[in-house]
Amino acid sequence: MSTPSTTEPANLMEAIVSLAKRRGFVFPSSEIYGGLNGFFDYGPLGVELKKNIRDCWWNDMVRRRDDVVGIETSIIMHPKVWEASGHVAGFSDPLVDCKVSKNRYRADQLFFAPVIVTGADGVAQTIGYVSALENEKTTEELQAAAELMKRKKAVQGTLAAVQPRDFTEAKPEEISQIPSPATGNPDLTPPRAFNMMFQTNVGAMTDASSVAYLRPETAQGMFVDFKNVVDTGRVKLPFGIAQTGKSFRNEITPRNFIFRSREFEQMEMEFFIHEDDDWAKWHRYWINWCKDWLKSIGLPDSHISEFDHLKEKLAFYSKGTTDIMFKFPFGVQELWGIAARGNYDLTQHATASGKPQEIFDEATKKKFVPHVIEPAVGLDRIFLAVLASGYAEEQVTDEKGNTETRTVLRLSPRLAPVKVAVLPLLKNKEALVARAQALYTKLKRKYPCFYDEAGAVGRRYRRQDEIGTPWCVTIDFDTIEKEGDTFTLRERDSMQQKRITEAELFALLEEQVY
Amino acid sequence: MSTPSTTEPANLMEAIVSLAKRRGFVFPSSEIYGGLNGFFDYGPLGVELKKNIRDCWWNDMVRRRDDVVGIETSIIMHPKVWEASGHVAGFSDPLVDCKVSKNRYRADQLFFAPVIVTGADGVAQTIGYVSALENEKTTEELQAAAELMKRKKAVQGTLAAVQPRDFTEAKPEEISQIPSPATGNPDLTPPRAFNMMFQTNVGAMTDASSVAYLRPETAQGMFVDFKNVVDTGRVKLPFGIAQTGKSFRNEITPRNFIFRSREFEQMEMEFFIHEDDDWAKWHRYWINWCKDWLKSIGLPDSHISEFDHLKEKLAFYSKGTTDIMFKFPFGVQELWGIAARGNYDLTQHATASGKPQEIFDEATKKKFVPHVIEPAVGLDRIFLAVLASGYAEEQVTDEKGNTETRTVLRLSPRLAPVKVAVLPLLKNKEALVARAQALYTKLKRKYPCFYDEAGAVGRRYRRQDEIGTPWCVTIDFDTIEKEGDTFTLRERDSMQQKRITEAELFALLEEQVY
Repeated sequence: MSTPSTTEPANLMEAIVSLAKRRGFVFPSSEIYGGLNGFFDYGPLGVELKKNIRDCWWNDMVRRRDDVVGIETSIIMHPKVWEASGHVAGFSDPLVDCKVSKNRYRADQLFFAPVIVTGADGVAQTIGYVSALENEKTTEELQAAAELMKRKKAVQGTLAAVQPRDFTEAKPEEISQIPSPATGNPDLTPPRAFNMMFQTNVGAMTDASSVAYLRPETAQGMFVDFKNVVDTGRVKLPFGIAQTGKSFRNEITPRNFIFRSREFEQMEMEFFIHEDDDWAKWHRYWINWCKDWLKSIGLPDSHISEFDHLKEKLAFYSKGTTDIMFKFPFGVQELWGIAARGNYDLTQHATASGKPQEIFDEATKKKFVPHVIEPAVGLDRIFLAVLASGYAEEQVTDEKGNTETRTVLRLSPRLAPVKVAVLPLLKNKEALVARAQALYTKLKRKYPCFYDEAGAVGRRYRRQDEIGTPWCVTIDFDTIEKEGDTFTLRERDSMQQKRITEAELFALLEEQVY
Repeated sequence: MSTPSTTEPANLMEAIVSLAKRRGFVFPSSEIYGGLNGFFDYGPLGVELKKNIRDCWWNDMVRRRDDVVGIETSIIMHPKVWEASGHVAGFSDPLVDCKVSKNRYRADQLFFAPVIVTGADGVAQTIGYVSALENEKTTEELQAAAELMKRKKAVQGTLAAVQPRDFTEAKPEEISQIPSPATGNPDLTPPRAFNMMFQTNVGAMTDASSVAYLRPETAQGMFVDFKNVVDTGRVKLPFGIAQTGKSFRNEITPRNFIFRSREFEQMEMEFFIHEDDDWAKWHRYWINWCKDWLKSIGLPDSHISEFDHLKEKLAFYSKGTTDIMFKFPFGVQELWGIAARGNYDLTQHATASGKPQEIFDEATKKKFVPHVIEPAVGLDRIFLAVLASGYAEEQVTDEKGNTETRTVLRLSPRLAPVKVAVLPLLKNKEALVARAQALYTKLKRKYPCFYDEAGAVGRRYRRQDEIGTPWCVTIDFDTIEKEGDTFTLRERDSMQQKRITEAELFALLEEQVY
């Protein structure tokens, strides 16, 4: 068997979405009713992969550390939490209405450009405006639209290259000329703020007094419960409070599959430090920790980079924010944000609730409000990063010299939904099946595994390759006829095979699955 | 040391709520803002206990079975799901308004009785009505109110024992006489249906077209994704689809701590069987499975019973429902419902979506809609059952003959947030601390454990007893001075101590924590 050659599929995103649907990783929510935009379900394999990512994070972030404790706060919290945090006033997207079509657009995703033609006299004139929604080819689309306008208006001269700006930068005199993507006429309103929190009512009344929100982030739970944790948790600075859980944002344009959805799961941690401690040191510590962790679950170093937010774009209280970026199929995008938020959140809640959020410093005998470093990541985004960077199509040649394409999901053993597949070589040989079943039963108490006796072994390997199973164990005639009770262990990525005992198999799993 | 004698605390519920707050198991949500009725947060120890219950269920229900797969569906689903399921039309509580105080009551929790006095002439007359909210002493309260009324009205004769009925049974002529608990006057409206689903709006519009609901149960996710699972999951009948996740119900009167809250977590499974299969056999199978599982996580057999719903009170499609009941501090209440729902749900969704929800029978060459058995349990209720039945206060006598009370939480090793506490006998002996730290580091990779060197060993044991840690390991002078590298293993419930090697400790954990 020759070394496999990997080919990138023509459309990686399409390939992933298709695999996710076909093998039961991710389905559109409520699909039999036509789906619901921005909501997704995780299928039998997806729920296991998601749970494994969550558990790895929890084990490494909480259980194996002495300085981080976990909590789980409610999704619906007191509405005053979101007033104090600033979300009621400020958690909004700029929204533009088309007055005629009634379509709505996010202003920062709607691009426009003046169409400028320089005549033979050397004078540049603006002959109109063109617009287009953000996509990979926005500039090309605007240029094409500009050329069309010049032709239609039969203007002589040289068309300038378009300079796209987004609609949040449009001046009033421009808004009255920029065409709506829906109608082609200038029917757009100025941008207005649209709050992204989902709203509901708690209790029997449906009025202003009962308004509540679905949390748009889990982080506020850590701030609101800060004193309860300090009073009960035997913690001392520096220490962190972590939680995983669902958050909700009423995105106007959910997109890129599970990358930007309306219901998603976060894994956030608030690391509290002394007000005099070196925040930049801790900030760097957590950036490094997060990058190392991503690599520990198998994401390739080559896809990971850092982006520092510009000082002038930060909120006034922020000391610095660095995003760990990941190379997704649709571009390099934010995966994990590590923010140094000062003591803003605790101070806000202290003021709003009238309950001091302080710690007593034994050394200086002074009370103070701790500062915080916040690493915040979306579980669904990690899930997508794992699928996208793990997916490969390979040309492989079998013993008979036939070439075929195998699809392989290179998942880390920590994350793989199935750790081992147990395969009797033949399903009609009682001794093979009995030994395979015995091994399967013993493995299953500790490790998710799969028993498969249907079809040729090669086809069974392929089925496991596609769902990311790191190892297949085949029970063959050597197992039952020769001494030593050994199996054939076949490794997913190299497709190498070797013989292994039951004890060696358990030792391998113990080391690799943690 | 003598055998401990267990005493039931005077108010068990109060003792549990107090421990839960004091040791970081459960906090009221948004407590610094005065809390939010019906919402709770899980603290550092609570989140671990909750996660362990969830993981035990998932491992036993999904990963260790060949006939059940897991999924995770979105909390917000297409609104048509809830029309088809009957929740939009029928998922409601009967609600009564007090027109004067504006208070609202659940009609089935508001009790009333006519006050009947039999005079010397042997004629019984109704002199008025009394009312009271449901509690442990509703009948006594009504009787006392009746006596008061008789005295106030100065009616002569013998007062009959009150016969309480709830407000859903009140006739119109009675409603006009029954006093509101808030005003004492007949200010109550007739009961009306109040839908318990939380409502929100998805997308930029806030109108009827964008209405959506927070799911009131996870079960519909399994029905709506049924075909997707069948098409991708390599399942064949009989098989189950399971999920755990948050559900939301706008309860009018949340109560009994985390027993009836507005945001809670469910663990549900839909077990699909052939239409000709023996549903009663499977129903009994799952009742037994659930009872055995409750015992496997440490709940006492003595607290568990069954309640069969009356045939005439079942929905028309239901073949039978049995509740596994648990003896909570506030009475015997439903813990786990096992319902035989026929093919009602799949048929409803097939009709509403126009997508057949059928399976092809290879034997008869016919298509049919599978029937379902549904075991549905609330994770928070199990959490409360575990705390309530595990809590004990004991009088113990130490070596010096002193008697003290110890609080102990008898959690199963599978559920305990901390599996082992590692204690060096003295914190100022370097060799003891080094050996303890080495053991702690090795244990922590696999098992949640706790290192404690602060205070007398006896006090350290007590701290662990109170949070349910099954074992403490003490590193003492025998460990470092004698051969064999053994530790003192102290068992929580018996308080017995014995010497154990590191290998024996790992073997014990491997066997007991699974």
